[in-house]
Amino acid sequence: MKFERDYRVAWVDTDTLGIMHFSNYFRVCERIEEEFLNFLGFSEEYRKDILLPRVMAKCEYKYPLRFNDTARISMKIDEIGKKHLTYGFEIYNKNQGKLSAICKITVVAINKDFKSIPIPDEFIEKIRPYFES
Amino acid sequence: MKFERDYRVAWVDTDTLGIMHFSNYFRVCERIEEEFLNFLGFSEEYRKDILLPRVMAKCEYKYPLRFNDTARISMKIDEIGKKHLTYGFEIYNKNQGKLSAICKITVVAINKDFKSIPIPDEFIEKIRPYFES
Amino acid sequence: MKFERDYRVAWVDTDTLGIMHFSNYFRVCERIEEEFLNFLGFSEEYRKDILLPRVMAKCEYKYPLRFNDTARISMKIDEIGKKHLTYGFEIYNKNQGKLSAICKITVVAINKDFKSIPIPDEFIEKIRPYFES
Amino acid sequence: MKFERDYRVAWVDTDTLGIMHFSNYFRVCERIEEEFLNFLGFSEEYRKDILLPRVMAKCEYKYPLRFNDTARISMKIDEIGKKHLTYGFEIYNKNQGKLSAICKITVVAINKDFKSIPIPDEFIEKIRPYFES
Repeated sequence: MKFERDYRVAWVDTDTLGIMHFSNYFRVCERIEEEFLNFLGFSEEYRKDILLPRVMAKCEYKYPLRFNDTARISMKIDEIGKKHLTYGFEIYNKNQGKLSAICKITVVAINKDFKSIPIPDEFIEKIRPYFES
Repeated sequence: MKFERDYRVAWVDTDTLGIMHFSNYFRVCERIEEEFLNFLGFSEEYRKDILLPRVMAKCEYKYPLRFNDTARISMKIDEIGKKHLTYGFEIYNKNQGKLSAICKITVVAINKDFKSIPIPDEFIEKIRPYFES
Repeated sequence: MKFERDYRVAWVDTDTLGIMHFSNYFRVCERIEEEFLNFLGFSEEYRKDILLPRVMAKCEYKYPLRFNDTARISMKIDEIGKKHLTYGFEIYNKNQGKLSAICKITVVAINKDFKSIPIPDEFIEKIRPYFES
Repeated sequence: MKFERDYRVAWVDTDTLGIMHFSNYFRVCERIEEEFLNFLGFSEEYRKDILLPRVMAKCEYKYPLRFNDTARISMKIDEIGKKHLTYGFEIYNKNQGKLSAICKITVVAINKDFKSIPIPDEFIEKIRPYFES
């Protein structure tokens, strides 16, 4: 199963070349992750207690996105470890029908005292349907 | 007296038109304000106790800045109230010798419990030399 | 008539105080302006020929927005001049039921050679229903 | 040989956790790359004809940076291919004396018509002293 959402590229996302700046792909991925966790029903309270700081982020860029292009982002879980998760994102340029980028973000879990904790079971349970080995 | 610093426009600051995005002028002003308060010697500790949230921000745009242009920012204090301060910024395009924008930011003071407080006397004392009525 | 859209505050929009950074209100306003012009049916081609650079931008901040808060943005036209337009924005924190900010952005029109032109008649015709004197 | 520059973390770079947002590491790396190319004397004219779009960007995060922390960025060339270059960046938190992140950015060369070209010889000549196999 994949979680899919669209994002319209804003003017401020672009640079002098007229394309979305490479750093903004990471911001778009995070926005979709936020919508994913909202969709799964993790409450604000829950998310204050369990934070998911990033330990790795990577994008491979294939084809640009321009102002007002619609990106279709398709998100799944690539890895479920005891202490880490890796999200996988495919970002399509819907206007051009091309794959724009492939991104991965690896997170670990910490509690509100900034102590490392295992990824909680109830968290893994909810995201498991989106896991593809 | 004025506080002056330079800022080189980064690629990510620009948009499809090849000019610095209008929202980034506010970020450049804040960056200079930060350097100003660092220069005046306000410690990290001090700044955790007295926060200066913005209640108004305004820019008038005159001439663009492009990638790698150097902006000269000239900052002064326009207003010193009991509960607010207004900073004034003039942003010059040094490469073209033109005024790029005039900006104003009004701040109030709050303590670490988010309660409104008067602008502290020792704060006003340090910034007063930069006040122009 | 007003043009209304929602915007969910992203993690990256926030700062150390846990609130949306003041510069991001301008980006949210511009995003809504983009959706407004898309909604009115201005084509990509049309928008390449007629650009609307900003000459003034201003926000007054009333109440913060936090991560995952939904902002309701209500946009109208405040001024229609021969050579300029002023958009007015009210940004509400829907979660708290409070007005978060009031913003104004004034634009002028230029053609693709960067020459100043009057605001085109067909443009004014389409936006006029959103004008409140 | 390495190219080293400092970057002071701005308030707007931080998020609700009080740390520099992970996407901003990529922006800091690009800023240092810009200063590197300026330092090597590549003119504006030259850089309009030869563009270096990113095909891969990756960061591994080790330790946070907070507001007003000074990052020391140490940059070198990791790979010189016929058609690509990989920059390597080490980002230190100078205030805490810790390695904050390790980043890599791979670029290819295109001309002003967006056609892929080999990395120009005169470009490789200038950057070669910073290459570490």
